[in-house]
Amino acid sequence: MREKQKNKNDLPKHWYNVAADFKNIYVPSLNPITKNNLIISDITNIFPDTLAKQEFDTDNVMINIPDELLELYRIWRPTPLFRAKNLENYLKTKCKIFYKYEGVSPIGSHKANSAIAQAYYAKKSGFNHLVGETGAGQWGSAISMAASFNNMMCSIFMVKNSYESKAARRILMQTFGSTVISSPSDITKCGSDIKKQNEGFHGSLGLAIAEAVEYASNHPNVAYSLGSALNFVCLHQTIIGNELMNQLKAINITPNYIICCVGGGSSFAGISFPFLREKLEGKNNINFIAAESNAVPTITRGKYTYDHGDSAKLTPLMKMYTLGHDFAAPAIHAGGLRYHGLSPLISKMCAEGYVEGRAYSQLDVYNAATIFTKCEGFLPAPEAAHGIKSAIDVAVEHQNEQFNIIFCLTGHGFFDLGGYEAYNLEKMEDSVTPSEIIV
Amino acid sequence: MREKQKNKNDLPKHWYNVAADFKNIYVPSLNPITKNNLIISDITNIFPDTLAKQEFDTDNVMINIPDELLELYRIWRPTPLFRAKNLENYLKTKCKIFYKYEGVSPIGSHKANSAIAQAYYAKKSGFNHLVGETGAGQWGSAISMAASFNNMMCSIFMVKNSYESKAARRILMQTFGSTVISSPSDITKCGSDIKKQNEGFHGSLGLAIAEAVEYASNHPNVAYSLGSALNFVCLHQTIIGNELMNQLKAINITPNYIICCVGGGSSFAGISFPFLREKLEGKNNINFIAAESNAVPTITRGKYTYDHGDSAKLTPLMKMYTLGHDFAAPAIHAGGLRYHGLSPLISKMCAEGYVEGRAYSQLDVYNAATIFTKCEGFLPAPEAAHGIKSAIDVAVEHQNEQFNIIFCLTGHGFFDLGGYEAYNLEKMEDSVTPSEIIV
Repeated sequence: MREKQKNKNDLPKHWYNVAADFKNIYVPSLNPITKNNLIISDITNIFPDTLAKQEFDTDNVMINIPDELLELYRIWRPTPLFRAKNLENYLKTKCKIFYKYEGVSPIGSHKANSAIAQAYYAKKSGFNHLVGETGAGQWGSAISMAASFNNMMCSIFMVKNSYESKAARRILMQTFGSTVISSPSDITKCGSDIKKQNEGFHGSLGLAIAEAVEYASNHPNVAYSLGSALNFVCLHQTIIGNELMNQLKAINITPNYIICCVGGGSSFAGISFPFLREKLEGKNNINFIAAESNAVPTITRGKYTYDHGDSAKLTPLMKMYTLGHDFAAPAIHAGGLRYHGLSPLISKMCAEGYVEGRAYSQLDVYNAATIFTKCEGFLPAPEAAHGIKSAIDVAVEHQNEQFNIIFCLTGHGFFDLGGYEAYNLEKMEDSVTPSEIIV
Repeated sequence: MREKQKNKNDLPKHWYNVAADFKNIYVPSLNPITKNNLIISDITNIFPDTLAKQEFDTDNVMINIPDELLELYRIWRPTPLFRAKNLENYLKTKCKIFYKYEGVSPIGSHKANSAIAQAYYAKKSGFNHLVGETGAGQWGSAISMAASFNNMMCSIFMVKNSYESKAARRILMQTFGSTVISSPSDITKCGSDIKKQNEGFHGSLGLAIAEAVEYASNHPNVAYSLGSALNFVCLHQTIIGNELMNQLKAINITPNYIICCVGGGSSFAGISFPFLREKLEGKNNINFIAAESNAVPTITRGKYTYDHGDSAKLTPLMKMYTLGHDFAAPAIHAGGLRYHGLSPLISKMCAEGYVEGRAYSQLDVYNAATIFTKCEGFLPAPEAAHGIKSAIDVAVEHQNEQFNIIFCLTGHGFFDLGGYEAYNLEKMEDSVTPSEIIV
C-alpha cells in the first residue's frame, strides 16, 4: 500500500450509483429464456450476492467502499491527474488539456478498480475460484492479480487469436498464478461445439464470455467476473470520477469536456458518472464524448435495443447500443474496443442526448497516440488513444477558447508495441466501418 | 506535468554531490592515453560543459536542479513509497518492508532521472543530437524520451542480441522518434572492425558504448549520453534518496537497511548517497546492500583497480570494482546488470566498508520476483528483482526484529516477460559465476 505523507482520507469512500440517483437511467435487463425482467436470483449462481445486489440497486446512491478494499486501492490510488502542457504547446491551443492516468495500477489499466472489488466480494461469499474471459488480456490480468491478492484460484478464457499473438499478457496472468485457456476450448460445451463446427475459428470475446459463464454455472465454487458493461462494474469504476472531482476542485478547474474511449464502457462510466450526475441535475453543461472505433461503431452506427452480451446467448438481454451479439469485429489493435455492446446505463445516457459518441479510425488514433507519446512521455494503450484523438480534435477545434478538456488515459501501451511498430513502419492498414452496418 | 493538490514545493530542489562532501570518496579518473589525471577538457568534446563540470565537481555539495527540469520531473515525481504489507505477511516477518517505486516514470525506470538532465544540458550547450548505447533498452528509452521532450535528434546503439530479441523496447525508442542501430554497426570504425574480425558477434554493452563515444567524437553537434557509472549520473539520481528522506521523515520511519540492485550503480547511488552522507558523518548505522548477479559479481569477485568503461578502451580509466573491460558477461535476463564495472564513487564506498555487495543467482531472483508480484501486484524488472531477493533474505533472517527495510524497485518488468515465461515453465537455467573469475 502507498504510504501517505499527509492525509489518510484522500481516497473517496464511496462509489456513485447513478442507477439509484436517476431511476429513468436504469432500464431492467431481461431473463434470456423467459424474457421477463431479470431478478436477482437469476444471477446469484455465478455472481456473489453483494455484486448481484449492486447490479439491481436502485435505492442507494452512495455505496460504501469496504475498508479492506480501500487498503488495496491505496496500492495505486489516487491515480495522478496530469496537465498535458507539452501537448497544448504542440497543438498551439489555448485550451488546457488534463488527463487522469489509470495506467499506474500494477496491471496497467483501470480494470483493476473493479477486479479487486469482484474478488473481494466473491471470497466473502464463499467462492474460492474466479473465472473470466479476456481479449487482449487487460481484464484477465486484472482478475489474476485480484485473485492472487485473495489467495483464490483463477482461470481465464483468452480469445485464441490473442492467446497466440499476445504472449506477454498471458505470461503476466500466469505469473500471478492463473490458468490461461485458449478459447474456444474443449472444457466447455459451447467451446467444443464451436470447435467441431469450425476448426479454424480464432475465437471472439463473445464466445470467451460464454465459455466463462458456462464454466462458472457448472462449478459452484467458481464466481464469474466480467470486466465491463454491467452496472456493478460501472459502479466500481466511479472511484475514478469521484477522485477526479476532488482533484479538479483543488486546482480550481471546471471541465468543459470529459472524454474517454468506450468498448463496453467501464472506464467511460468511471470518469463520467459523477459529473453526469451534475449535468442531469442541470448544474453543469459539460460535453461528454465517448470515443469509439469506426470499426466497432456501437453508438454511432448501432441500434438501441435489447441484445445478449455474448454470442451463445447465455447472458441476460440488455437494452443497449449494439451491433448484434454475433457481430464479428474487424481485427483492430484496440482489442478492448472490439465488443458489440455498450453498458445499458451509458447507452441510456447516449439515447437521452447526455453523451455524444464519436468514432475514429485506427490510423488517426495511432497518429494521435504518437504525438502524445512524444510530448508527454507516456505510451498509451490503443484503446485509450481513442480518447486522446478526440481530445486533440476538440483542442484544435476550439484552439482560441480557454476550454478545460479532461480525458481518461485508461492504460499504458507497453503490451501493444506491435501496433506501434506497424504504424512507425507505415505498414498499418486503416480501419473501416464494416459494410453490413453502414445503413 | 502532475497537478499538485497541495504543496508545489514537494520535490527536492537539489541533487546531492557526495564527491564534494567527502573528498576522500572522490578518486580521479585517468586520461586513457596519457594516464595523467583526467581534466575537464578531456571530455568536453562529447559532453556538455555543465555535465563535465558536475563530473569533476568537488566543491558544491548541493547542486541546484533547474526549474525547467523540476517541471519535467513533476511528470512522474515524487515517485511513490510503498509499504509491502502483503509481502511482510507472506514472509511472517516482524520487519517492515518499504519500496521506493521508480517504475512509474513514463519509460518505466529510474533511468529517466538522469536522461532528462543530460538532454537539457546538451541542448543548452548547443548540441542538437544525443547518442547513447543500450543493452536491454532501458537507457535507450530514457534518452529517446528526453530527446523528444527537447526536440533533439537521438541515435541509439543497441546491443545486437537485444536488438533482435527485445523488439518492444526498440519500438518504444522508435516511437519517440529515435534511430536505433544494431551494434556492432558499420557506421563506426570500432564497430566495423569487430564485424570484420568476428562476423557472428552478437554485441556487448562495452562495444555499444565504444560505438556511441566514437560517433559523438566525430560529430560536433552530437552529445554522448551515458546511463550509469559516471559521477554526474549518480548525482542526478540522488533525487530518489532526497525524496525518500522526506517521505520517511513524514511517516517517522528510520531505515535499518537500504537495498538496491547494482549494474553500473546509478540507482544504488540515487537511493543511498543521501543516507550514506549521514553514515559517513557517523549519524546513522544503516546497512547498505548492493545486490548484484552472481554471473556478474563485480563487487564480490571483482578487483578494485583502474579500468576502462568500454571494451575498445576509449573511455577514461576509472578506479573501480571491475571484472575487466573485456569481461564477457553470461546471458542473464537482467541485461542491465551485465556490466563489468561499477561507479567509482560506489566502488570507493565498498572498498571503505560502508557498502556491502551481495550476489544472487537468477533462479533465486525470479523466485523472489514472483513472490513479490503475487503479493504486491507490481511485476519487477529482473534487475530490480535482485534488490527484492536481498530484501526478502534480510526480512526472513531478522524475522523477529522490528527492522525497517527499504529497497528501490528500479523499474517494471513489462518488457521482460520472456524471463518470467521461462521461470514459470521451469525452463530457466540458473546463473553461475564464470569459472575464470572464481579465484
